[in-house]
Amino acid sequence: MPRRPPAVVLAPDSFKGSLSAAAAAAALAEGLRRVWPDADLRLCPMADGGEGTLDAVLSRGGRRSTDRVSDVSGKPLTVAYGSIGEPATAVLEVAQVVGLTDPAVATIDVEHRTTLGVGELMRHRLDAGVRRFMIGLGGSSTNDGGAGLLAALGLSLTDARGQAIAPPPAGLATLAAVDASGLDPRLADAEIIVMSDVNNPLTGDRGATAIFGPQKGASRERIAEIDRRIANFASLAERALNRRAQDEPGAGAAGGLGFALQLIGGKMRSGAEVVADLVGLDAALDGAGWAITGEGRSDAQTALGKTPLIVALRAAAQQIPVSLISGSIDRSALPALGRYFAGCFSLPSGPAKLEQCLAQAAELLADRAEQVARLFDIARR
Amino acid sequence: MPRRPPAVVLAPDSFKGSLSAAAAAAALAEGLRRVWPDADLRLCPMADGGEGTLDAVLSRGGRRSTDRVSDVSGKPLTVAYGSIGEPATAVLEVAQVVGLTDPAVATIDVEHRTTLGVGELMRHRLDAGVRRFMIGLGGSSTNDGGAGLLAALGLSLTDARGQAIAPPPAGLATLAAVDASGLDPRLADAEIIVMSDVNNPLTGDRGATAIFGPQKGASRERIAEIDRRIANFASLAERALNRRAQDEPGAGAAGGLGFALQLIGGKMRSGAEVVADLVGLDAALDGAGWAITGEGRSDAQTALGKTPLIVALRAAAQQIPVSLISGSIDRSALPALGRYFAGCFSLPSGPAKLEQCLAQAAELLADRAEQVARLFDIARR
Repeated sequence: MPRRPPAVVLAPDSFKGSLSAAAAAAALAEGLRRVWPDADLRLCPMADGGEGTLDAVLSRGGRRSTDRVSDVSGKPLTVAYGSIGEPATAVLEVAQVVGLTDPAVATIDVEHRTTLGVGELMRHRLDAGVRRFMIGLGGSSTNDGGAGLLAALGLSLTDARGQAIAPPPAGLATLAAVDASGLDPRLADAEIIVMSDVNNPLTGDRGATAIFGPQKGASRERIAEIDRRIANFASLAERALNRRAQDEPGAGAAGGLGFALQLIGGKMRSGAEVVADLVGLDAALDGAGWAITGEGRSDAQTALGKTPLIVALRAAAQQIPVSLISGSIDRSALPALGRYFAGCFSLPSGPAKLEQCLAQAAELLADRAEQVARLFDIARR
Repeated sequence: MPRRPPAVVLAPDSFKGSLSAAAAAAALAEGLRRVWPDADLRLCPMADGGEGTLDAVLSRGGRRSTDRVSDVSGKPLTVAYGSIGEPATAVLEVAQVVGLTDPAVATIDVEHRTTLGVGELMRHRLDAGVRRFMIGLGGSSTNDGGAGLLAALGLSLTDARGQAIAPPPAGLATLAAVDASGLDPRLADAEIIVMSDVNNPLTGDRGATAIFGPQKGASRERIAEIDRRIANFASLAERALNRRAQDEPGAGAAGGLGFALQLIGGKMRSGAEVVADLVGLDAALDGAGWAITGEGRSDAQTALGKTPLIVALRAAAQQIPVSLISGSIDRSALPALGRYFAGCFSLPSGPAKLEQCLAQAAELLADRAEQVARLFDIARR
């Protein structure tokens, strides 16, 4: 006897290189509708604070706006941000301003990329009366210790002769003094939630430059020197604000934006946890019979705290089984993933090249969701 | 509350190029044991009358023996055959004697390959008192109209001067007369079940030579001539035995062995149906809660009668859901497959080359079975 279809929560992360989280959720829904045309499907596109965070958050409501700020090289750039709730919380995505996947960024040396525009975006929101921020740090191309952001918010950075230094991080080479007296006083009333899944400190062997510098283009020979300059800036800034932050977990996130934002009172949180709250994942799970999450590629890192794991933990708290459908799954991670997921499935329907899978991702995801739902349906009869 | 694990029937075909049906069933079982250590798993390796049929049948009992017969070129060859039941039924696999995947066969032109050895194998079994045969036709390399087999069983083939012709099919060029007076009289008492999933007639546009000749190495220019010789042989043989067979469905199977065996009273049956009976599939399904079948590659042909479909139909007759796990699945066939299978799954865990999938087939199959079982398990709670 067929039972009523379960209510299903569809909470994928984006599939990097092929599908936004919203497109992935829609593809899952399409596949499930082939099996259960009238099922209660609850689409909760997810993100981890990186690229796609703004889209995921706004998929559940709020308003998307644009602003003009400086790009990594100081040129004007139009960026999107979100406003949710009342009084408004600004949802900012660092990747919108200084994103690593922006092709223009590749032409600028990492030592000349600044986070000035991120600070401008915050300042403009303060001007508009906003006092609550949710800032996603993932996917940044910068490694300036957050000096650009703090400069945009009024921190004064000067050289030995009292002259303002060149835009960081290159200018940090001659940094001699930091003065916080001009720091935007409205920040004292602001609540700043920082979304990140990076726990590294600002400097040293596990710091931003050593660990993330190379993938942003820092050459091996320059790492020690860049790290030294950032350490000098951080110590001066900490003294000026009479607060410590460089050894806090996550200070090394987004090339030191994690440090700068914590220095002005920001609280670090797991990006996926914040997004889960913003999209109302717990409410969506309430009364559901099954959840499906996924991402472009799942491996051992997934089981250590990536977005699908957050979905799995939230679902487990309500005793709801969660399955994982990802573009590909590292087989060696299956035992670890098996602790959290009731079935891990991948997209290819046979031997296939990566480009093929990326190009067909939506169709493959709908197909896989359909097949998984068929099995789920028959098993519960 | 966890329910008792279901009894599961594991009835895969072989995964061509990687796993025998028995190895595939064992890999499925390994994966399921990770989820249900004590489950009642019923392994029924399947086959379709082609290569692997003997292994599948003998996996459920019976005795494997060997015999010395002629290979495709007339040289001595040791081949395996099976004996099941009492009085013994001989289980013969044509692919053991004249198999297309035998590398030695490739060096012999198809016009010089004979099925003499298959007839010898039958004759030796008749000598041993066997009167019941199950003969799997799939995977043959020959296209001699079954003339070799009939010659080995006593049919006399002579040229215009009354001389025995050279071994068929080359010798069929000069064939002038067929005499059945020397045909082994014991065949009159024999029951011959012919396993095949080919329905083609012996000759003509849909005949053995036109359809299967090219993949056995017959050049386009030779097809009409070979077809004409086989038609001539068939007509003479039919007249000599006073029986017609060349237009029977399946006469064109195995290069005309389907004709020759029907001419001496053989009954054509679907290979997978016969194997299902021999391995006791219906009894294994009795009381089971789930079945899994699979094959190397599933496509639209699968839904038209390949081994997994036979498993699906047998299971449906007992209201047991069946899932399909194949090496790869043609996406365009999913709607057709969806009518029979509660979930179709393929092996790759991400973008992968065919060789990779073949080399890892057992591990991938166990992994996939485990994940599918996890989902099945959770869905029925």
